[in-house]
Amino acid sequence: MDSYFIPFLDPQLLMVRYNEISRFLHRTPILTSKSLDFENNASLFFKCENFQKSGAFKMRGVSNAIFELLLKKEKPEGVVAHSSGNHGQALAWAAQSHDIPCKVVMPSNASEFKKKAVLAAGAEIIECFPTILARKAAVKKVCKNSAFIEIHPSNQPSVILGQGSAAWELLEDCQQRDVSLDWIGVPIGGGGLAAGTGFAVSVWNNLHGTATKVFCGEPSGADDAFRSLISGKIEFNKNPYTVADGLRTELGDINFPIIKKTIKEIYLVSDKEILEGQIKLAERLKIVLETNCSPPFSAICKNLERFNGKKVGIIISGGNVDLRSSVWGE
Amino acid sequence: MDSYFIPFLDPQLLMVRYNEISRFLHRTPILTSKSLDFENNASLFFKCENFQKSGAFKMRGVSNAIFELLLKKEKPEGVVAHSSGNHGQALAWAAQSHDIPCKVVMPSNASEFKKKAVLAAGAEIIECFPTILARKAAVKKVCKNSAFIEIHPSNQPSVILGQGSAAWELLEDCQQRDVSLDWIGVPIGGGGLAAGTGFAVSVWNNLHGTATKVFCGEPSGADDAFRSLISGKIEFNKNPYTVADGLRTELGDINFPIIKKTIKEIYLVSDKEILEGQIKLAERLKIVLETNCSPPFSAICKNLERFNGKKVGIIISGGNVDLRSSVWGE
Repeated sequence: MDSYFIPFLDPQLLMVRYNEISRFLHRTPILTSKSLDFENNASLFFKCENFQKSGAFKMRGVSNAIFELLLKKEKPEGVVAHSSGNHGQALAWAAQSHDIPCKVVMPSNASEFKKKAVLAAGAEIIECFPTILARKAAVKKVCKNSAFIEIHPSNQPSVILGQGSAAWELLEDCQQRDVSLDWIGVPIGGGGLAAGTGFAVSVWNNLHGTATKVFCGEPSGADDAFRSLISGKIEFNKNPYTVADGLRTELGDINFPIIKKTIKEIYLVSDKEILEGQIKLAERLKIVLETNCSPPFSAICKNLERFNGKKVGIIISGGNVDLRSSVWGE
Repeated sequence: MDSYFIPFLDPQLLMVRYNEISRFLHRTPILTSKSLDFENNASLFFKCENFQKSGAFKMRGVSNAIFELLLKKEKPEGVVAHSSGNHGQALAWAAQSHDIPCKVVMPSNASEFKKKAVLAAGAEIIECFPTILARKAAVKKVCKNSAFIEIHPSNQPSVILGQGSAAWELLEDCQQRDVSLDWIGVPIGGGGLAAGTGFAVSVWNNLHGTATKVFCGEPSGADDAFRSLISGKIEFNKNPYTVADGLRTELGDINFPIIKKTIKEIYLVSDKEILEGQIKLAERLKIVLETNCSPPFSAICKNLERFNGKKVGIIISGGNVDLRSSVWGE
């Protein structure tokens, strides 16, 4: 466990923090479906972060990151991140609500849909070449030439901690219904949601004497986390290819130790299974969700025996889909 | 006002009834969107019946119809309806939950998606030629050869009364938030939801001394209700054509007198406006909704001055979309 998290091993401290940042967040609903439960012979509880502010769980991490900046010192001159998707949008929204300037480095090939969303939240876009090196360099330049502070999407303690609040709310709301979850499933890409969920669930288990376990669903076309958990060190993707475009990224040195300690299993799913899962969830739950959301659900559909009769929470990570240029299930 | 409704002009009786049938229904959530409010300069409250059991508000009408059958006498031998869409599916679900046999007359060209949903709810499908005459004849035959009772989708008092419960819940939940709605908007096709909403809102206004008004959105390609409200008698569609396939039907002799008394305005919207409204609602609210839902929202977008600064409730009627064969916005 990263030393940063040790103070939060006191569950009361974690609850206070999650309560503090909840003012900047929606408490998203939990949806259920009798027909999906019947088909999968399990009780499924979908925590719908597609309804979160900015349309994704990413709002949780950036809200906590900004909260910590404000705790430590004066309001920062600004915040910056590189992102082609939900992290940039969330940071822009969170910064705007605190009147903090925000710059988002976006690759020149980012869609107009995504650029529009970042601009709508009042951030400035800095365009760069569509490579990870160019993106990092552009952020570095901003930080060098100003007092802007970088907020990383997945490999920063305050962000990881914030992401864990989705699982915490899910556990609280299930407890209210007298449901003790056997599993919580999340998608894994950069590792921020996975580490945050693993951490929050372990604190919850300590507090309540429960034994909820965490698993991840990962695209087989970007299976670095699956291989990392086997080898015990961070593995990389050579040519990641998957329709789940938010899950092509890799783990970081801060989140990986937490993932190693707290994630029980990672299941690989194919793009076909991801798309099938997405369309089934959309049709049954009547929600718009990204391809990035479906890996944990697709993993259940693929491993029915493993989850037979179990109570499983699933975090639906986001709903920012450009429907005008989408065809479902293809 | 139809004489059937007079006993319910006592609001207490209506509340008791709505409370009784609520056991068979979901209390659907109300969604809001800051960006949609900003763009339309109005406060919009979306009552999401796409999350209702069976995926549509139709569950309300059939639940009340079956409740009344059970109040009056022994459990019926069975129930029957003709439907190519949500009414049949809702009736099948409601009948199944009361262990009542159900037959649904469906045109031979109904989609596999819709047939599957009716079968999944345990009903028997009776296929017929795809004409309204053939559909009516098939229902008549079932009723003649058995003691099955027909449940009409829109022109039956118990069904109309049940549909009104969506608006009643919307008004209650808005009251809880200290919001008094200026308008409630609904789509209009067969007239069941419109009449039920108009009736329920007039009872609410009597009870609370409020002045909430009801308007409808109607496709210009099936503008019979718009013309009927002008001429004062039921007008018909010669060749209805609209992407909102659930709104091609016509008003009935039971719901029209209620509509005449309780609906203030009907706005026509083109198919282009309907599709634009659907995709905007899906992208912003992150919900799956039918083309049939968007006319009242599209009417607001089209008549911004009329609704400027107003508090408007909108009933999102259903979410049964075959995403596998859909392209959004086309």
